[in-house]
Amino acid sequence: MNLVLIPLLLVWMAGSVAAQTATRPDLVRVQGNTFVTADGKPIVFRGLNASDPDRLEKSGHWNKAYFEEMKRWGATLVRLPVHPTAWRSRGKEPYLQLLDKGVGWAEELGLYVIIDWHSIGNLKNELYQSPMYETTHKESFEFWRTMADHYKDNTTVAFFELFNEPTVMGGKLGTCSWTEWKTLMEETITIIRANGSKAIPLVAGFNWAYDLKEVANNPIKAEGIGYVSHPYPMKREKPWADKWTADWGYVAKKYPLILTEVGFCGPDDKGAHVPVISDESYGDAITSYCDTNKISYVVWVFDPQWAPMLFSDWNFTPTRQGRYFKKAMQAYKAGKP
Amino acid sequence: MNLVLIPLLLVWMAGSVAAQTATRPDLVRVQGNTFVTADGKPIVFRGLNASDPDRLEKSGHWNKAYFEEMKRWGATLVRLPVHPTAWRSRGKEPYLQLLDKGVGWAEELGLYVIIDWHSIGNLKNELYQSPMYETTHKESFEFWRTMADHYKDNTTVAFFELFNEPTVMGGKLGTCSWTEWKTLMEETITIIRANGSKAIPLVAGFNWAYDLKEVANNPIKAEGIGYVSHPYPMKREKPWADKWTADWGYVAKKYPLILTEVGFCGPDDKGAHVPVISDESYGDAITSYCDTNKISYVVWVFDPQWAPMLFSDWNFTPTRQGRYFKKAMQAYKAGKP
Amino acid sequence: MNLVLIPLLLVWMAGSVAAQTATRPDLVRVQGNTFVTADGKPIVFRGLNASDPDRLEKSGHWNKAYFEEMKRWGATLVRLPVHPTAWRSRGKEPYLQLLDKGVGWAEELGLYVIIDWHSIGNLKNELYQSPMYETTHKESFEFWRTMADHYKDNTTVAFFELFNEPTVMGGKLGTCSWTEWKTLMEETITIIRANGSKAIPLVAGFNWAYDLKEVANNPIKAEGIGYVSHPYPMKREKPWADKWTADWGYVAKKYPLILTEVGFCGPDDKGAHVPVISDESYGDAITSYCDTNKISYVVWVFDPQWAPMLFSDWNFTPTRQGRYFKKAMQAYKAGKP
Ligand SMILES: [Mg+2]
Ligand SMILES: [Mg+2]
Ligand SMILES: [Mg+2]
Ligand SMILES: [Mg+2]
Ligand SMILES: [Mg+2]
Repeated sequence: MNLVLIPLLLVWMAGSVAAQTATRPDLVRVQGNTFVTADGKPIVFRGLNASDPDRLEKSGHWNKAYFEEMKRWGATLVRLPVHPTAWRSRGKEPYLQLLDKGVGWAEELGLYVIIDWHSIGNLKNELYQSPMYETTHKESFEFWRTMADHYKDNTTVAFFELFNEPTVMGGKLGTCSWTEWKTLMEETITIIRANGSKAIPLVAGFNWAYDLKEVANNPIKAEGIGYVSHPYPMKREKPWADKWTADWGYVAKKYPLILTEVGFCGPDDKGAHVPVISDESYGDAITSYCDTNKISYVVWVFDPQWAPMLFSDWNFTPTRQGRYFKKAMQAYKAGKP
Repeated sequence: MNLVLIPLLLVWMAGSVAAQTATRPDLVRVQGNTFVTADGKPIVFRGLNASDPDRLEKSGHWNKAYFEEMKRWGATLVRLPVHPTAWRSRGKEPYLQLLDKGVGWAEELGLYVIIDWHSIGNLKNELYQSPMYETTHKESFEFWRTMADHYKDNTTVAFFELFNEPTVMGGKLGTCSWTEWKTLMEETITIIRANGSKAIPLVAGFNWAYDLKEVANNPIKAEGIGYVSHPYPMKREKPWADKWTADWGYVAKKYPLILTEVGFCGPDDKGAHVPVISDESYGDAITSYCDTNKISYVVWVFDPQWAPMLFSDWNFTPTRQGRYFKKAMQAYKAGKP
Repeated sequence: MNLVLIPLLLVWMAGSVAAQTATRPDLVRVQGNTFVTADGKPIVFRGLNASDPDRLEKSGHWNKAYFEEMKRWGATLVRLPVHPTAWRSRGKEPYLQLLDKGVGWAEELGLYVIIDWHSIGNLKNELYQSPMYETTHKESFEFWRTMADHYKDNTTVAFFELFNEPTVMGGKLGTCSWTEWKTLMEETITIIRANGSKAIPLVAGFNWAYDLKEVANNPIKAEGIGYVSHPYPMKREKPWADKWTADWGYVAKKYPLILTEVGFCGPDDKGAHVPVISDESYGDAITSYCDTNKISYVVWVFDPQWAPMLFSDWNFTPTRQGRYFKKAMQAYKAGKP
């Protein structure tokens, strides 16, 4: 009977050793307008958006293979969008266990992680685009208090994206001035740092995280943070470059900038909706803009149902934008900037 | 068998045709200090307060006959007071169905409708006079977001009364400055209009919606709204006219004004309470003040139990104030101003 | 059968008579920097902290014997810490009944009472040290609205301590400026007084109710209140006196001051924790500081499990600090200041 058990034990030990030998990655921090590692070396990220870990777990896809595939596509960074509804329904401890698994796989594969509080709406008024994005000031603060404490010694979790997409929906959710938004973000950053976290807070602007014009005159009062834009193709008419510079790109001259959602699909593709409809010319424009200006980006979304999707089935068969970005991201490994 | 069905079908078709041929009324809008119809013709309303549709439905009286009787009494406007507690306990979709029925009957009869968020207290602190008035900022904003979207193409719903009776109860509910109140009202108006509604927002002042003195120096920052007062007899000592002018009547020189609650009962009448006890001299004073100054009014309340009541049983037998106002309101049809 | 009942009836009548003859104590009010009784005579209190009445009731110790023992130890004041969690789980009416019993026993024994809303954290953000302290603005306001109304004619309930220990935990709970805190406290005082209460509101400062430095330039805008500090031994290094004066003691020159929590235990005593570890030198320092400056104090805590505890079993066997304070407090009866 002992003899039978030995092979299993060896397998178990091997797994254990592998996990232990995976070295935790260098702490990422902010230096001027760039993200840098411990040795001061700048890093520009090329990443992929996972779907909500809660959803992936329910459909049986929250596993290391999912992370391995993202790495194979060229990702150096994975964004984990935590929907407030999922956070509440699963519960704090079970959701943390889910995140711990994902962060563990990322670490084993040398991928960095963004934890993203995936709400859309006007946090000031606690009014949201739809029920799945419902949260409160208190829940948002508590979420970051929990994340900051839980991951304070974990350098894999490099980024905390404080609120996915701030928007008043043209007034349908009331008003929120930049000063009011700034206050909420600064309060969140205070909480994160006082709870011992060194993760880099990422702050988005209005218009569904597109617009960063207010940063010019009134930046967030906190050192060591990054800014976010989600410049989907239909936010502006082609040609894009000058508009992007005026709306958010100029920020990259002074602060680290990361486009935590970019992506496109054709008008007839599954899930096509405003503002994501475009073609490969958008892919060329956004990757070239980011490469030139050393801006990090994360493509939305590594899922076969959420749109714009990157693959169409669980063999990870790339969609149209999947083919585009898989090729683009793999090219960096091969030596692109 | 078919022959038997025909008469029923004809009745049903006749009803259907009637409903379809009822023309939706002209949009009411604000011009200077008056409400006007599409052709710019001023309208002064003489209306009646329904009780809460939820309550009427539960007691079997939410039906067209109720609206027909109000019309018979001379009403051109019906106010529907939606209690937050009723809204929550019935649920959004079922309550909307209830309102749709009432709005439909009103429309068939050529009556305009006020939807009134019937809370009493200090919305700033979310403290209320009693449990039935409990609500939150968020629920109030969501209520108006829902109403604005649901009735955006419905001209029968001419008015949205944002909050029935603001009061700090002499400090029992804390403080609320006019500036704080204004901010809440302006936010609500932004939400209503961004959601596509053309209904006229009605804004009340403190002291249970009696006092509008703050409007003089600090009006709500929004075009096209009306102001509200509830000048029950005991809010001031007789003679009333000059005090009314100073407290709220002066507003009518610059903005449309509507007294969404007026009424009285004798000291020994059922439900008599401060501040409603008086006699027909109050009726004379308030109707004459409104007629002279072209101020709209809505009598409280078309119910046999809430006080001061207008009728005493479901044959609609008028009470003392019922007799007074039925006569007064019917006189307008007969040619009074 | 009647004969059998008579003795029981007599006992019941005697109890009833005793309760009725207990004269309600003089109203305590504020005069300059002292608490005074109706005749203007200053009172300095020496009191004891009960544990939460809800907890005492559950363990079978919410009885008159508990209050008699506190009186025997020399207490003239008892602080009743109401934990928000206990308030919610027991419910308003049942908790009021519990308080009524305790206030009744206190009254029979000539002891004054502080009702203390026993939360710890940042009320502004509704973030707390741990779940048992969770409350909201609304719940806190409603608690005081209820207390003010319920005890408005009860002079035994001399004090309302508005919020036990305000703290941002070094930013872990975000920020709260003194101005923001002041606003919350002033709003609470408005509510209490408008609801008819003459109880003296007690206001604490930040750093777990230790720090009152902000009072110097920016006192609470309300007459007739007292300030609170909880100067546990480890809040400052020895020698303490000058630091205490700078941090909170200076307030006693202008306003009545009451240390609603003082206490110590040895490093190896059960429940020893920062900031309460010290020895009798702390007892000497704090009692002497209070005696000299006519500052009231209340020792934490008359319970055999919460720390630092005053007795070790339900025979009320004094602990180390129990022996110290029992002797100190009894000395006042014997004629100390
Ligand atoms: Mg809130
Ligand atoms: Mg998005
Ligand atoms: Mg009323
Ligand atoms: Mg709140
Ligand atoms: Mg304490």
